Amino acid sequence: MNSSQPALPPGFLAGAVACGIKSSGGPDLALLVSRMPATAAAVFTRNKVVGAPIILGRRMMRRGVLTACVINSGCANVCTGERGLADAREMCALAASTLATIGIPAEADQILPSSTGVIGRFLPMERLREGLPRLAASLGGSLRHSQRFARGILTTDTRPKTAAATFLLNGRRITVTGWCKGSGMIAPNMATMLAFVATDAAIAAAPLRAAVRQVAAETFNCVTVDQHTSTSDTFVVLANGQAANRRIMASGPAWRKFTQVLHDVCDALSRQIAADGEGATKLVRVWVTGAATAADARKAALAIANSPLVKTALHGADPNWGRFVSAAGYSGAKMNPGQARCRVGSIEVFKAGRPTAADPARVAALMKQNEVEIAVDLGAGGAQRCRIYTCDLSRRYITINADYHT
Amino acid sequence: MNSSQPALPPGFLAGAVACGIKSSGGPDLALLVSRMPATAAAVFTRNKVVGAPIILGRRMMRRGVLTACVINSGCANVCTGERGLADAREMCALAASTLATIGIPAEADQILPSSTGVIGRFLPMERLREGLPRLAASLGGSLRHSQRFARGILTTDTRPKTAAATFLLNGRRITVTGWCKGSGMIAPNMATMLAFVATDAAIAAAPLRAAVRQVAAETFNCVTVDQHTSTSDTFVVLANGQAANRRIMASGPAWRKFTQVLHDVCDALSRQIAADGEGATKLVRVWVTGAATAADARKAALAIANSPLVKTALHGADPNWGRFVSAAGYSGAKMNPGQARCRVGSIEVFKAGRPTAADPARVAALMKQNEVEIAVDLGAGGAQRCRIYTCDLSRRYITINADYHT
Repeated sequence: MNSSQPALPPGFLAGAVACGIKSSGGPDLALLVSRMPATAAAVFTRNKVVGAPIILGRRMMRRGVLTACVINSGCANVCTGERGLADAREMCALAASTLATIGIPAEADQILPSSTGVIGRFLPMERLREGLPRLAASLGGSLRHSQRFARGILTTDTRPKTAAATFLLNGRRITVTGWCKGSGMIAPNMATMLAFVATDAAIAAAPLRAAVRQVAAETFNCVTVDQHTSTSDTFVVLANGQAANRRIMASGPAWRKFTQVLHDVCDALSRQIAADGEGATKLVRVWVTGAATAADARKAALAIANSPLVKTALHGADPNWGRFVSAAGYSGAKMNPGQARCRVGSIEVFKAGRPTAADPARVAALMKQNEVEIAVDLGAGGAQRCRIYTCDLSRRYITINADYHT
Repeated sequence: MNSSQPALPPGFLAGAVACGIKSSGGPDLALLVSRMPATAAAVFTRNKVVGAPIILGRRMMRRGVLTACVINSGCANVCTGERGLADAREMCALAASTLATIGIPAEADQILPSSTGVIGRFLPMERLREGLPRLAASLGGSLRHSQRFARGILTTDTRPKTAAATFLLNGRRITVTGWCKGSGMIAPNMATMLAFVATDAAIAAAPLRAAVRQVAAETFNCVTVDQHTSTSDTFVVLANGQAANRRIMASGPAWRKFTQVLHDVCDALSRQIAADGEGATKLVRVWVTGAATAADARKAALAIANSPLVKTALHGADPNWGRFVSAAGYSGAKMNPGQARCRVGSIEVFKAGRPTAADPARVAALMKQNEVEIAVDLGAGGAQRCRIYTCDLSRRYITINADYHT
């Protein structure tokens, strides 16, 4: 990662307006545009209940070409039946009309819609009909436009989330810039609710799809805030080829380099989601090692990361590591307690079936930091491991989700 | 259920003393005794990390005969290695010596030990060595003794949990009395941390084991407070035969009658655990219907019951039913959203893929009650169903588990 400013790659425009869907009055309608059709790949939620935008999006992605992404926050357009589908289609058609007014030709079925917010409400179409035509005037390629786009896609997030990197490929400088939102209803798969990545790399559809799938598994699908997999999760990459590198056609050194940079950008975004989890006061890295299988490592790491008892111990900086070890124990992963170990930060607290002589006060001090690492080795004889980002569970999570009615 | 007072069945004694393990100063060492060896059956936690008492208990249950259960609260004796096993053995031996002083012959390996409380600490044996001899004098067969026993096994519970029933079998009156504790670290399997049932029924070991397994699956394993399966969970039934009914030898009408009464007692206990979940302000019944398989019904019901977003909506009486439906959607259960339904109490809120015209204010009013029912029909074409008891998630859960250090 060699850039933290989310500059738009060449050929991309972004913008956002407020149209009154979010009660806060902030920007709630956003557009990311490539001046020319871009190769695109996406992964979507695996929830069996999905929003109308996901149903449309899955169909669009069969062709692997997108010109734009249009996003509203404040209403998810989920559980809304046929009317929801018609509303999502109209949202894309209105975005296409808007783009036509500034000379960017775009088919409605090459504009990916995304909606997040409350489930079970119809999109307020009168507001979208008023706001979408104004989006064209908000578009631009500057850093300011990129930052406004980042804000336009947020819901309960407390801060915008962006990451960017540039790298050289065949002597051409390539930019990869990502934006995401996500704070609650966050769990694999997908961990992020919405993540958009724009790049000027030239890459064919199949290798882009492979890169997106691999990176999603390693980054967004390794974040959990509250184990509640959303109905709207979308991670999409648009590659418009403006860097004019030799087009990446298959796996090989260029593909690996591109995929590694995409991974770094998405890893940075996924950390930001966990750190900004609803009510979070700290970022937590859970490491599970010594697992018999990769699936076991993931199961145990998610059990630890999702346990309310673990998350409250982290919140209170309570060195009660029995909660970490026992969560691994109920995860279903193969475990040998007599060989298992547990570590908080750099301090080993449990080894060979019994407590170490670690000083609880020193463990508690480590747990008071902004970033905490907890590690459990399952002692199951394997070498498989998994890392999950999560956060603590605070009273503010309850306040956010119980007190402010939807 | 025809009795709410937890009278001890004939031939049983109970008692408890305070020996300083629990910082509250309340009774923390308890004993349930049958004057004569009782047929016994038990189920234990499925966590792979288990306490020393569970390791000993599993061995004891191979013979299926118990004279007593000795329980301490305040320290779980888990993750304590060989020393923990030696401590648990000494606890049983001390209990046997105590009983010998009042003329009840008991082998140490017929006394089931149970310990709950903090994980990763050694039992304070000097306190047990002082307290256990005093237990004999605390024993008795009256209601007062039963109630003191109920208090002696509690940890973070706010109230004792008991249930009892009597019924006639072959003209003989049979009593079934149960006590349990459990408030946090509560999830299948076992949902209860500790449940003890005493009965004067005459029943052979094999049909008793069958009854215990079936009832555990239908009651304690259908409760979740915080999805964290404890390392100490134990449900044991002692049947001392003093009712002198024709001994139940196999399944048949007498077995079914006995099992139904055992079910009713344990169902009442498991409801009490959910209602007294840490920080709970209401008891919640989650019903899932229309599932393709029984496993799917259970998966979906647990996903709903364990979702922090569902539990906070219940806490705030927020009629945000999208959280209930979307939790079923990510559970992994087969689901047909277009045919799915959702009901809060008696009000249908979602049907045929879209919201009904239900008034959110009326739904919110139902959700403000002490007992709330939420139901999701998966629309998957099957007739399988599952009911899970749970509770809401409040700030007090955070306070209990983050602020009071262990």
